Amino acid sequence: MRIAELSRVSGVPVPTIKYYLRESLLPPGELTSPNQASYGELHVRRLRLVRALIDLAGVPVAQVKEILAGLDSETMSLHDQIGRAHRAIISRRQLTSAPQDSTTEAAAAQVEALIKSRDWKVEADAPALTTLTETLATMRSLGQDHLANLLDAYADAVEKFTALEVAAVTSGPDHTTPGQIAESVIIGTILGETLISSLRLLSQESTSAHRWT
Amino acid sequence: MRIAELSRVSGVPVPTIKYYLRESLLPPGELTSPNQASYGELHVRRLRLVRALIDLAGVPVAQVKEILAGLDSETMSLHDQIGRAHRAIISRRQLTSAPQDSTTEAAAAQVEALIKSRDWKVEADAPALTTLTETLATMRSLGQDHLANLLDAYADAVEKFTALEVAAVTSGPDHTTPGQIAESVIIGTILGETLISSLRLLSQESTSAHRWT
Repeated sequence: MRIAELSRVSGVPVPTIKYYLRESLLPPGELTSPNQASYGELHVRRLRLVRALIDLAGVPVAQVKEILAGLDSETMSLHDQIGRAHRAIISRRQLTSAPQDSTTEAAAAQVEALIKSRDWKVEADAPALTTLTETLATMRSLGQDHLANLLDAYADAVEKFTALEVAAVTSGPDHTTPGQIAESVIIGTILGETLISSLRLLSQESTSAHRWT
Repeated sequence: MRIAELSRVSGVPVPTIKYYLRESLLPPGELTSPNQASYGELHVRRLRLVRALIDLAGVPVAQVKEILAGLDSETMSLHDQIGRAHRAIISRRQLTSAPQDSTTEAAAAQVEALIKSRDWKVEADAPALTTLTETLATMRSLGQDHLANLLDAYADAVEKFTALEVAAVTSGPDHTTPGQIAESVIIGTILGETLISSLRLLSQESTSAHRWT
């Protein structure tokens, strides 16, 4: 199909599609003449993924590019593709002025104990470790120890999510190639977060409506 | 304390503090002379909250302002304060070009069935409903039905989070006034999401390391 039809099918305006092509978020179409390219199902699908990452998950364009480059790599291991997606979505979640005080040290110790008790195998420089530590420290310094103390209960639930997700993406006849598993894992990681986040808000709104109205 | 000391204690640069004062993210200090103001513990605490919302939770400044105005309101009900925070953090998570197709209709039906089966009391125009529906539709249109089918399992876990959080913020001698409960709920909602998100990434990284390296 031509770019006008790709726009109609996907609902994405032509100038936006052209921008994605320039930024390599979308692979080039097949040239049918010097000035005309043809696009296929692969482009429709990729456009859906790009829109979801940007609009629903709030991932900045530069990071989307990183994630897609990982997905399209023929040589990168699945673990490295996942690591790249992780770094792309969390690298910006860090205090720009983090106080190095006793609260932060205590939070770091709490995180270390958690990792050890659950035998989690994570790199010492994983950005999520910093985000987790700073979040716990902030909760405590704002007098919300009772929230920071829920860490273990949160981790229990999160481990269940991960087990379900791994089972979902690795089973079934449609997900047997490493490339398909990688795409599934990336979508599960990033859109799964949007899913959990919106479910949480609905559950909280309902609880609040029952309790405080 | 003067602004220079507030900067030292909080780690936030003076120009940033001045910007927050101009934007009303921080209440004015007490004037001690026509050109000098004095700041206290309340300012240190508010600065921590602002930094956490912006840096860790990624909430844009305009939305932080909305949330704080809700928190500082003397007349707004707790339910409305929570609603305001919800809208501030999720309003931007929406497809700018959503296709109205059968996949979206099926996703809307799945969400409606979920709300009904769990007896959730949510407003028909809650932004999280749109985000949830669009996320499910995107998963399905990308061939990830197995992920979209986890919706009920996710909702189970999320209901547990909410119950734990409500118990945490409403119990304990420190959280008896409505204002304190409101602050606790807002912090729990927003920083709780950052906590879950970073725990998920760590759990996934570990699983991936065990499985795919």
